[in-house]
Amino acid sequence: MTTSPDAVEPRSTLLANIGQLATLDPAEPDRPIRTGAALVIDDGRVAWVGASADAPAADTRIDAEGAAVIPGFVDSHSHLVFAGDRVDEFEARMAGRPYTAGGIRTTVAATRAASDDELRGRLRHLARQCRAQGTTTLEIKSGYGLTVADEQRALRLARELTPETTFLGAHVVPPEFADDRDAYVDLVCGPMLAACAPHARFIDVFIDRGAFTVDEARRILTAGTDAGLLPRIHAGQLEPDGGTALAVELGAASVDHGTYLTETDVELLAASARAEAAGGPPATVVTLLPLVELSTKQPYPDARRLLDAGAAVALASDGNPGSNYSTSMPLAVALAVRELGMTPLEALAAATRGGARALRRTDVGHLGVGARGDAVILDAPDHRHLAYRPGVPLVRQVVGGEQLDAPHRSGRAAGE
Amino acid sequence: MTTSPDAVEPRSTLLANIGQLATLDPAEPDRPIRTGAALVIDDGRVAWVGASADAPAADTRIDAEGAAVIPGFVDSHSHLVFAGDRVDEFEARMAGRPYTAGGIRTTVAATRAASDDELRGRLRHLARQCRAQGTTTLEIKSGYGLTVADEQRALRLARELTPETTFLGAHVVPPEFADDRDAYVDLVCGPMLAACAPHARFIDVFIDRGAFTVDEARRILTAGTDAGLLPRIHAGQLEPDGGTALAVELGAASVDHGTYLTETDVELLAASARAEAAGGPPATVVTLLPLVELSTKQPYPDARRLLDAGAAVALASDGNPGSNYSTSMPLAVALAVRELGMTPLEALAAATRGGARALRRTDVGHLGVGARGDAVILDAPDHRHLAYRPGVPLVRQVVGGEQLDAPHRSGRAAGE
Repeated sequence: MTTSPDAVEPRSTLLANIGQLATLDPAEPDRPIRTGAALVIDDGRVAWVGASADAPAADTRIDAEGAAVIPGFVDSHSHLVFAGDRVDEFEARMAGRPYTAGGIRTTVAATRAASDDELRGRLRHLARQCRAQGTTTLEIKSGYGLTVADEQRALRLARELTPETTFLGAHVVPPEFADDRDAYVDLVCGPMLAACAPHARFIDVFIDRGAFTVDEARRILTAGTDAGLLPRIHAGQLEPDGGTALAVELGAASVDHGTYLTETDVELLAASARAEAAGGPPATVVTLLPLVELSTKQPYPDARRLLDAGAAVALASDGNPGSNYSTSMPLAVALAVRELGMTPLEALAAATRGGARALRRTDVGHLGVGARGDAVILDAPDHRHLAYRPGVPLVRQVVGGEQLDAPHRSGRAAGE
Repeated sequence: MTTSPDAVEPRSTLLANIGQLATLDPAEPDRPIRTGAALVIDDGRVAWVGASADAPAADTRIDAEGAAVIPGFVDSHSHLVFAGDRVDEFEARMAGRPYTAGGIRTTVAATRAASDDELRGRLRHLARQCRAQGTTTLEIKSGYGLTVADEQRALRLARELTPETTFLGAHVVPPEFADDRDAYVDLVCGPMLAACAPHARFIDVFIDRGAFTVDEARRILTAGTDAGLLPRIHAGQLEPDGGTALAVELGAASVDHGTYLTETDVELLAASARAEAAGGPPATVVTLLPLVELSTKQPYPDARRLLDAGAAVALASDGNPGSNYSTSMPLAVALAVRELGMTPLEALAAATRGGARALRRTDVGHLGVGARGDAVILDAPDHRHLAYRPGVPLVRQVVGGEQLDAPHRSGRAAGE
């Protein structure tokens, strides 16, 4: 769709002739899917959902031609502000070298050396690729700067594209602090946090043998919370650790990876979801990142176990130059069905509503009345084709969403 | 590129500023990759390859802007003439039901019931998706008709798009012959072959417990060879069988699947490749189809074992509505690196030159001087990004190739 320069905004759009509409509306938990439906988006919000035959008039009309329509993907975990790539490391890993967190430092050196314009251009290119794959809400982390100025710069650039920015100064300890990690934690909790908090919504820590301990994470996340940020944690990627328990203890929005979880971890996550359902605070979502396992040859996480226990589960890409340079939410959905034990509908919900929950958003990730009108028209009659046809570009058209394909607009924009 | 109606054909095209050019030229086995290169295509053929700075003038110019350029994929195995889909069967399989060949009959019923126009429209839509993913040479099989008229129709429709058509009347025994399979084999070898041979280049048999035996396959393929067709075989998908030995015995162009191979099978394939290298007849190529294993939850084939033994290896999609409805050659390449033990360069070569060998073509699958000018400009600086960034649509532009995106032209067309 194009808008002529003198068109009067806002306009209403009728999305007609939808063969299968996945609203995933939390207000209608027993009816996630409709057939023969239509949708009206007005001022960037879903204004009406119903049978195609009953659809009201609107200023413009998009004919879905019987295709499936789904909510835009909510990719709640990415690291897309960086320079360079690590394709040599990838090839070596595929040939048998194990994945470790150490390669992050390679990207840190390249990122620090890059100009703002280079980083911005690369980020926007990657964000446009995300949108072309159906992502309409994208979280972006810092974490390849690891100085006050470089972390702040990464968040400023990310904020030009999305409100969902995460301060990840605690990604790894940079080389210049190798002999004094406490001083680096002090820096993260002090001047770096102060410089970054105005540009971030979340604070995150990578808990891993090669990165930070649970105690360091508690200190950093507590400082972040005091500065008004919401906590999230990377944990359980390569071995069980205390990160999941800490996430639930702190009321973190999410704990990400979840490949290695103890029975206690699973029960803590489930209890958190039960508490939300009972009217308590929002659950700590466990965000699974199967594209990482694909690209590191690690075992996949067990989504079935988490879903059966009642945990709140999200799927995200973890797009980054090291452990996984794919930003494909459709492929994440396909892997979740093939490898993680999810049904196609569970996987779709985790990649949309699940991601929204992990970002503490209720206005995206579904197409119920009142939600943002961020929709994807598939080149397929059924949402299950995302899993049935892995790798095939099935995103025919993206409606609404953050302006991830608009290289010269900044900030958040609603509507199409 | 567009061509104005009165433009003088042929035109020459300079593909300039290529960051990394994978020619995979068999005449330069020690130099599969060039950097800082350019390519001239004249009358649909590669006319010049060299350093960007030395590039001659041409009628038109495409700036690759530093991206990688690869030969178009040669997808030597697909089943794209069909109606209906089997997404319910896919979902059940993902939930634990094992894959068997029986579901093919569901597609046979839907295909027989479809009109020519419906089948043509679906086929062309799927072929355009293939081209959008970088496939410039596409083999298409019959096999969902299983009557004289329906098999012939499938091949006629496929021939409108590609010269690489395969008669697969021996896909499964159709229900109406369930009590007299010998009569069906007679039909395939007699009237069906006679009706189909003018529209096909190859003849194929599916050797499987649920399909045909080795003895039946020998009879059918011998009849096909007598009718002027080149033999190929589906074998070793679910268990070791005698299909690979039969393929080598008959000098088949390829044996496809190769998931379960005995040591003898591997040695036969390697001996076939050695014989070709010594000036003998073309090798029997083993065509691996990892998208099938992805979508059936079966173990992946071991490409490393085959390559180390010296066999000729191809990668293809096996796009079909049952065991795998993906047509993504980029994802096949990524899986080959992740799961089959291939290096990124080996996987690229198998998906291009390997496929060409499996189709007994020397003019496609590489970009040496004299080859068809079928090239893919990637949205990446390095061909290894196909494996490094699975699922991301990295095909920026397709130059040349069969007119898989031209819905109203029939037959074979050279050039861009």
